[in-house]
Amino acid sequence: MSSALPYSNALVIGAGSWGTALTAVLAERGMQVQFWGRDHGLMDEIQNTRRNSRYLPGLVLPASIQATAKLEELRPADLVVFVVPSKAVRETAHSMAALSELQTAKVIISCAKGIELNSGKRLTQILSESFPHTALAVLTGPNHAEEVSQRMATAAVVACEKENIAREVQTCFTLPWFRTYTSDDVAGVEWAGAMKNPYAIAAGIALGLKLGDNAIAALVTRALAEMVRMGVAMGGRPESFMGLGGVGDLMATCYSQHSRNHRVGRLIGEGMPLQEIMSSTRMVAEGVPNTASLHGAAKAKGVRTPLLDEIYSMLYEAKPAKEAMRALLSRDPRAETE
Amino acid sequence: MSSALPYSNALVIGAGSWGTALTAVLAERGMQVQFWGRDHGLMDEIQNTRRNSRYLPGLVLPASIQATAKLEELRPADLVVFVVPSKAVRETAHSMAALSELQTAKVIISCAKGIELNSGKRLTQILSESFPHTALAVLTGPNHAEEVSQRMATAAVVACEKENIAREVQTCFTLPWFRTYTSDDVAGVEWAGAMKNPYAIAAGIALGLKLGDNAIAALVTRALAEMVRMGVAMGGRPESFMGLGGVGDLMATCYSQHSRNHRVGRLIGEGMPLQEIMSSTRMVAEGVPNTASLHGAAKAKGVRTPLLDEIYSMLYEAKPAKEAMRALLSRDPRAETE
Repeated sequence: MSSALPYSNALVIGAGSWGTALTAVLAERGMQVQFWGRDHGLMDEIQNTRRNSRYLPGLVLPASIQATAKLEELRPADLVVFVVPSKAVRETAHSMAALSELQTAKVIISCAKGIELNSGKRLTQILSESFPHTALAVLTGPNHAEEVSQRMATAAVVACEKENIAREVQTCFTLPWFRTYTSDDVAGVEWAGAMKNPYAIAAGIALGLKLGDNAIAALVTRALAEMVRMGVAMGGRPESFMGLGGVGDLMATCYSQHSRNHRVGRLIGEGMPLQEIMSSTRMVAEGVPNTASLHGAAKAKGVRTPLLDEIYSMLYEAKPAKEAMRALLSRDPRAETE
Repeated sequence: MSSALPYSNALVIGAGSWGTALTAVLAERGMQVQFWGRDHGLMDEIQNTRRNSRYLPGLVLPASIQATAKLEELRPADLVVFVVPSKAVRETAHSMAALSELQTAKVIISCAKGIELNSGKRLTQILSESFPHTALAVLTGPNHAEEVSQRMATAAVVACEKENIAREVQTCFTLPWFRTYTSDDVAGVEWAGAMKNPYAIAAGIALGLKLGDNAIAALVTRALAEMVRMGVAMGGRPESFMGLGGVGDLMATCYSQHSRNHRVGRLIGEGMPLQEIMSSTRMVAEGVPNTASLHGAAKAKGVRTPLLDEIYSMLYEAKPAKEAMRALLSRDPRAETE
């Protein structure tokens, strides 16, 4: 069922829940995997106990994985997986750019979701500044780490401008229960991935306000339309938003209790102040910074994003959730495609 | 907020939960509404108690509504709303075609979802055989009757080839909490509406089998792609599947516990035989007959529908749900748009 491995070594950078789950996937596929995180205590624990008790406690990692927080211990890897939070991508890439172990990689795969604040850059654009000679790819889709760690059936997309690299990465991320599809629309899947988190917050807010399934479906439908409008303005292709990295990830996040963004939204809808929500969880809800960077990018490009604007107002301008939702759900009737 | 009413009288045909909810919407909008159902006992109850205790017990209908099961009591109506189960559309339309009260209607609106078995005809095509001189429209979208009956925020699409009629119908179905958008792609929204029910059964099966959110998102993403492929082959426009009547209704149905189709699927996934499920509920799960008619239409047209094929096998050929789902979720890796 799986083709021969094109690469033998992988390095996963970032020890959150998704990095930990992807480490397990690559090891199960038969790759030699190094696992780097910046927290020495956590990485020592992983190396010694095979568990990441902080972010993915249920998973036991195979003995073959080498976990470390020391950059000097890293060995050359063909496949590098970047899975730090979007806000940390620039700094982490910059600090690793000097390592020849990474500069010789065949491909670097970006797995975080977001757009840089102020610059509006996609994460592979940021990575390319530190690794200008390395092929860059994106792995995305409706992929909850917890389910992947339990080997539950999962499908993902690998996007890379170079088709042969996309296929090689696909081969590395293929197991009987983990299926990967290829795409060459890197911009499209990155914009889709970045945008779904704010919309998941909005869906969570609607749930918290008990607005009902009809309202949530109307909201997510508008989210998809807005995602396409924005993503196409930014260089993506419309069909990418209809796939796993677009509507697939959007649905999974907007309708799942697993999603941190959805949970943040639900708590806002139930009346908890954002500050209190953010300080009560260790996990990063990417949608909160995503909203600010996307809102800025939309304004800079002149893209109309009424839904994102209301989410921004709720998160950053203390607009009451009920009022924002009312504005969204009672706009004047018109033709659907207007 | 609402324009003046273009029509003053409405007739709603079909006294299930959706017909009952739409009757309340039109009455709240200020129309004179007649409400017809074939069951004399039920219609007498509605006329006397203002309640449809069988299908939508929580709603009290306004006193202005005239409920009856007698065809001879019907008076002329500008707006006729057909909301009987899809299998009953031909027979009901045929039996009503002789009534001048209906033949003088300005527009007949089809609100059921399905395709005729064997002929593969859309419901407005069937209605046009009995009412060849009347404008035909479709009302569709992510609209659970229970939520509409509670005045929860809801958005819908009105599709009609005649733009002015679409706008007139839109005006009748517009309330502060009920928003309607227009479309001229009747074929597109009808195919979308017919296809979402079988896919909701599949999503319910995946839930019943506890396959997880990742698998369900992958499944629904494929459902959308298949819906577009089939609907476009049948004359719909791709963008219609991205709106409320397409992805909106698909999501609402695939992710909602309100949906009868979803519930039927979940019970199948949990191991209950279809025969037992069908005999234990009075409500019609449209997706079961829809699957047979759509499967036939796809074969006749030569459209590739692997997901629908597996659903058909589960419902009509006793294929074990686990086996069908495994076939769907472990197909060979390829490019996403293939």
